[in-house]
Order: sequence, then C-alpha cells, then structure tokens
Amino acid sequence: MIAEVLATGDEIITGSVTDTNSAYISEKLEETGILVVRHCCAGDDMDTLVSLFKETGSRADIAVVTGGLGPTLDDITSEAAAKAAGVALFQDKAALKSIEDYFKPKKRTISESNFKQALLPEGAECIPNPAGTAPGFVQTIGKCRFFFLPGVPLEMYSMFSESVLPEIEQIHGNNRLFNRVKIISVFGLPESTVGERLHGITQDFPEIKPGLRAVFPEIHVKLYGRGKDSRYLDECIEQATERILKKIGKNVFSVDGNSMQAEVGKLLNEKKSTIAIAESCTGGLISHWLTNVPGSSTYFHFSGVTYSNQAKINVLGVTSETINEYGAVHEKTVKEMADGVRRITGATYGLATSGIAGPTGGTEDKPVGTVCIGIASPDSIKSFSYCFTFDSRIKNKEIFAMTALEILRRELLGITED
Amino acid sequence: MIAEVLATGDEIITGSVTDTNSAYISEKLEETGILVVRHCCAGDDMDTLVSLFKETGSRADIAVVTGGLGPTLDDITSEAAAKAAGVALFQDKAALKSIEDYFKPKKRTISESNFKQALLPEGAECIPNPAGTAPGFVQTIGKCRFFFLPGVPLEMYSMFSESVLPEIEQIHGNNRLFNRVKIISVFGLPESTVGERLHGITQDFPEIKPGLRAVFPEIHVKLYGRGKDSRYLDECIEQATERILKKIGKNVFSVDGNSMQAEVGKLLNEKKSTIAIAESCTGGLISHWLTNVPGSSTYFHFSGVTYSNQAKINVLGVTSETINEYGAVHEKTVKEMADGVRRITGATYGLATSGIAGPTGGTEDKPVGTVCIGIASPDSIKSFSYCFTFDSRIKNKEIFAMTALEILRRELLGITED
Repeated sequence: MIAEVLATGDEIITGSVTDTNSAYISEKLEETGILVVRHCCAGDDMDTLVSLFKETGSRADIAVVTGGLGPTLDDITSEAAAKAAGVALFQDKAALKSIEDYFKPKKRTISESNFKQALLPEGAECIPNPAGTAPGFVQTIGKCRFFFLPGVPLEMYSMFSESVLPEIEQIHGNNRLFNRVKIISVFGLPESTVGERLHGITQDFPEIKPGLRAVFPEIHVKLYGRGKDSRYLDECIEQATERILKKIGKNVFSVDGNSMQAEVGKLLNEKKSTIAIAESCTGGLISHWLTNVPGSSTYFHFSGVTYSNQAKINVLGVTSETINEYGAVHEKTVKEMADGVRRITGATYGLATSGIAGPTGGTEDKPVGTVCIGIASPDSIKSFSYCFTFDSRIKNKEIFAMTALEILRRELLGITED
Repeated sequence: MIAEVLATGDEIITGSVTDTNSAYISEKLEETGILVVRHCCAGDDMDTLVSLFKETGSRADIAVVTGGLGPTLDDITSEAAAKAAGVALFQDKAALKSIEDYFKPKKRTISESNFKQALLPEGAECIPNPAGTAPGFVQTIGKCRFFFLPGVPLEMYSMFSESVLPEIEQIHGNNRLFNRVKIISVFGLPESTVGERLHGITQDFPEIKPGLRAVFPEIHVKLYGRGKDSRYLDECIEQATERILKKIGKNVFSVDGNSMQAEVGKLLNEKKSTIAIAESCTGGLISHWLTNVPGSSTYFHFSGVTYSNQAKINVLGVTSETINEYGAVHEKTVKEMADGVRRITGATYGLATSGIAGPTGGTEDKPVGTVCIGIASPDSIKSFSYCFTFDSRIKNKEIFAMTALEILRRELLGITED
C-alpha cells in the first residue's frame, strides 16, 4: 500500500510557516507499517491543487491532506477536491452538525462564512471536528482514498488518530504487521553520545529499528518494533529497553514518553512532598512547566519570580549582604533563595535559579549561559553551577529550567552526582 | 518564473525529522519575487527520486533540492539527478577541491566514502561547500534548472544565499517584481470575523493578497504585496494596513509582527512604568512570556505564582475573609491580589489572574475555563471575568495569560472597554 501526505496553504508554500503536520502524519503511518512515498505541498491556488490531487489519485492508494478547510476565501481545498473528483459541492448534513455542535456550548451563532465549511464534494463522508469549525472528509479521487483534515495541528491530531487511522488500518487489512513504539527520554548527554550507546541494538534485535531525535533540550531514543508475532515483539522491546537503560543510565528520566515535569510531579506525589520555587533567570518557566501537569496543585505551592534584587530580599529573605558581596548569580545567593522560599511556604523542597539568559548582561567572569541552581531539602541545602553555550535567550531559559528540574528529580530519587 | 522546492531523505518521509529547509528556501525565493508553486519530499529511493526530478523538470523553471549528498550508501541524490538527466556520473574537479579544502585545515585525510561525494552528473556545475564535505551542484533536467544542496541546514543556508540566490536572481532578470510582507496581529476576535473584515481588500488593492493565520491564541493577517513599482507597492501596503486598522480596530495589537509581550514591554518602557504579577491559574506563563523579551528586567519586577490559598494570603496579603467568603476564583480576590502585588513590590501596575484551567476543578457555577483578572493602577483597581470553552489545560492557560496582557495593554493605552 502506497501512501502520500499532502499539505496545502500559502503560508507553507511561502515559507512563513513550517509544515509540521506532514511529519506527524508520516510518523503515525510509519508506526502502523504503512509506507509513505511522498510529501507534497501546494499553495491556495485552484489549478495547482486540482492537478496535485489528480496526480496523487493516479499514483497512491491513500493520501492524507491537511489545510484549506477554514471559513475564509483562501480556503479552497474542498472545492479543489470536488473538481479533481469531477463532482459538485453540496451542503453535507453531518458537516453542518459538526459545526453546530462546536458552536452550541459557546452560545455563538454560525456565521455565513462558517456555512461554507459545510460544503463537501458529492459522495464525501464527513469526519467530525470536535475541536474546531472545520469538519474533515473522506473522498475517493482516481484510485486513491483521500482523507482531508484541517491544518490546525491540535484539531488535526485528534481527528487523525480517532477517525482516520482506524479506517486506514482497516484498508491496510491482513497485510498488517504488529507495531510497537517506545520512547526513552534522556537529558544531559549530547546526541552523538546517546547515538554511540545504541550501537549493536539492531544486530541483536533485528525486529527493532532505533531512532534518535533531539527535542531541545531532551534527546528521545525511539524504538520502532515491527513483526508478525506481537508477544515476541513486546519481549524484544522490553529487552532492548533494559539494555539501553544499562548503557545510558541515570540520564534517562522516562521510559513512558512522559515529560520531565510529569516525572517530577509523580515522584513528589509518591513521596507526599511539596515544592516551592524561586526563579530569577528562568522567569516563571519552571512553574509554567510544573503547572502544565493536571493535578499539580497537590504538590506545587508557590513560585516567586524574583527578577529584581529587591524582590529577592523582600519576598525570599535573601540578605542584602550576600547580594552585595557575591552578586545575584552566585551559589551562595541561590542557596539563600531556595532556603527562603522553602521556609516562607513550608514546602518540603525549595528550588532556586539565578543566571544570565542573555543576550546582554554577561561578563568575562560570568558569561551569558551561566546559571546557579540551589535546592533546599529537609536535611540539606545544595548548590550547583553550570555554563551553557547556546546563543539564544529562550534556549538558555529552557536548559536552565530543565537542569533545575533534573536536580530536583535526582534529589527525590536519592541519586548522587556522577 | 515557476519554482519548486524539493527535499529528499528517509528521515523526512518517515516523519522522524521535520523538513525546515523548504520553508527557509521558499521564504527567500518569495522575498526575491519568485513564485514557489510546490514543495515535494521523497525518501532515499531511486525510482521515486528519478520520477520526481523528471516531473519537476517538465513543470518548473527552477528547482532547489536539499539532502542526499552525504557520504553514505543511502545518499543517492547525485545518481538520481544523473539518471533523470540521462547522463553519467563522473569525478568533478571542483567538487574534489571543495572536499579537499574542507579537510585540509582539519588535517584529516579524505576517506573512500568522501570520494563518492565528488561524483557529479556530466554537465553539472559544482557549488562549493565551505562548511561541510558535501559539495552542491547545478544541473539542467528537462526545461528546469536544478540547484542541489546538502540537507544540513547550516551548510545549506550559506551555499543558498551566497551561490544559489544570486544565480536565480540573474535568471529571473528583468522580470523581477518587488515584494512586501506585512503582519498585523489581532487578539480577541474569531478567525471568521477577522476574515470577513478583510473583504474588499483584494478588489481595492489588486497588488495585495491578504492571508489569515491562526497562531493560537492570536490571529495574524498577512498582506503579501507584489508589483513592479516598489514605491507604489509601499503606498498600497500602507493604505491597506490603515483600512484594516479601521475595520478591526483596537483588537489589533501589533502591525510590526511583534508579540503581545513585546508590545506591552514597549509601552511600559515608554511610560517608564513597571509591572508585578500575581498568577494563580496561569501558573507562571505570564512572567515566562514577559521575560522572554530581552531587556525585560527594566520593567518586570516580580511575579508571585500563588497556587495555594495560603500563598495568596501570606505573600500577597489577600485577606482570608475574602477567600473564605468568595473563593479564590472571584473578582474581589483578584483585585486584592493585584493590589497586594503592586503594594509589596512598589511597581506601577499589578496584574492578577485566578481561574480554573482544568481538566478538573470546575463547578456548575464556575466551570473549567472561568478566569478572573485584576489590574491595579496608580489610580484604580479593576477586575474582569471571562469564561472560555477550550478543552485543554494548556490552551486555557494561554488564553488566560493573553487576555491578562491585553487588559494591561489597553490600560497602558487608555483604551476603555468596548
């Protein structure tokens, strides 16, 4: 079975948006054992879209298309699909219902332009969109089954996994091989080192293809397993995971695809502990990440984003002597910050950051990328210093915040420094 | 002149890497006034690549291809290009020199696999690669001039701007059109409403094509202008922008492509004012956004992420009576939070959020998506309540934070409520 993935939209063809949908869809199809042969992208131009759909329809068995289903004038995918299939557009009841269902709880009326979104090619089957106004649809063009989805990633993801993938798997039928994907998340090692530690996996487990992906600031090891025997496949994945855990060791923070903040939250819950944060250079990012986890209010008490020295002194009780003598970016200062935020909130742990995210503010002694991290526990106060060399304020904030959470994770697990 | 952009590589077609090269190249071509009609991507498969190159060669005038020029067995782009052009591969002197020049300062010898990289299709012209082992080349296939470049972004960028773009501009010659892109950022209106307010732009300004893009929680109106007279084009863009400003009004927060936090930062700087935040449901996101802006330490003093009621009382001085009587999510509470954080930090403005981001914690009275926002200014304390209906904790945090910044922006500009 041959699959192609198409994306439409002027914003992609002009380069003002990077198409991430095609990678997402390809990855999911790949995991299901379906071969993706091409990606194509065209702008919001009728002739180009119609010929693209016709070509793909003569070549592929299935095609997934994203974009161009919105309410505005430049959203012309449905019309292009109808032209390529040689049919007319008509108002689809299921599509209209999808739009009505979306608007009902919002108590908004459907505007003229939204009615346009209910026009589907004759013979198409609607794919409802619970998260937006643009219903998708399935349509045969040439010899190929086309799945049309909106371009907004969050709407597309759920429609793809809930409606499209099951139908594609059914079309794929008995040729089906079992698939497994395992994500092992690593922090604190360079991609090349992680890659070297995977040597030998493919030889010893021929069913498994390892892949590496840098998702800054993490490295994900992905194990793709494919085979006819599902139980044997599970055993292989398990053994390969154990092997990788031995080789990479404590830099692995999750084998379930969990985020660092979810892992830290799980550990805090398990230990019935709570956390309070004093953030300077990370500017609220640590608490934003922690509070992205549903239920985090159980263990997350407070974060003081103390950008100014005065706030460090007034809110956290850092002494002005320490700041005057050592400066804001110093291990002694972050120890006082961590201890202070722990004391004023009564949390089990206090975690503090102070550093220089850039682009300005660096000195020869403390260049941009310098960060000090303090952690106050029931029985100790520790501090750490690092100097990273990323040329970006945002990347610095991210690596600082991730390093602080990694220190907290190791403290919670009783892992001593390497 | 019609251009196409191609990317090759199994890593892209399987979705393990997102193709960012094509967006980069498209944007540069677009800026030069060249119309990109398609992007295509194929894996490292000889038949697919040969037919892709032939098709493109029969359709386009120029094509830029990235990837598949490396030293390993799966790098087959040169061979596929030779087959599509119907010529043989031969060792190219300039390509060999490019590889030698790369290795010389590193004192490394050229390996057998690197020699392969000097094999180019007969008639091709080498594009030297100063930053890597893979030389590029220019080759005519069909009626189309193909520019082949390595897939490593940093190597590709410099080769593209230094060697490829000048040659393309020369081919483009006198047909050159001038281009302008203008981004108008809107918050607080649905995409369909913004789209409706753009009606008539294309009729009145035929040189300008408006585009819409939802970048949650913002809507971006993009004006693409193209014409032979650069001064006239500038005037059209200016007039169209003014028209849009009139139609959309105060919901426009930037006409320079700036983020909301950058706009708010600019206003705070202009008014020599400072800000302190008390965040509950936004969990640190407002301060994370504000501190993403370089130089924000001038006006950003402090944010207290007071998730627990105790922290609201202890740190911000909210009265326990208010919390007991009205609850944490209430206009009276956020007024006390905003006033409290302004008072303890001495900032000009205090901004506070309290709400229910979900997925749990909602009640019939205050469902998930409810947020109260308070703002304390030198001469007033105001509060606002909203109920959003996004089915996502992260989206709720984002829309809450954005709404709070919008309230601050309007306060700074003296815009009264609509």
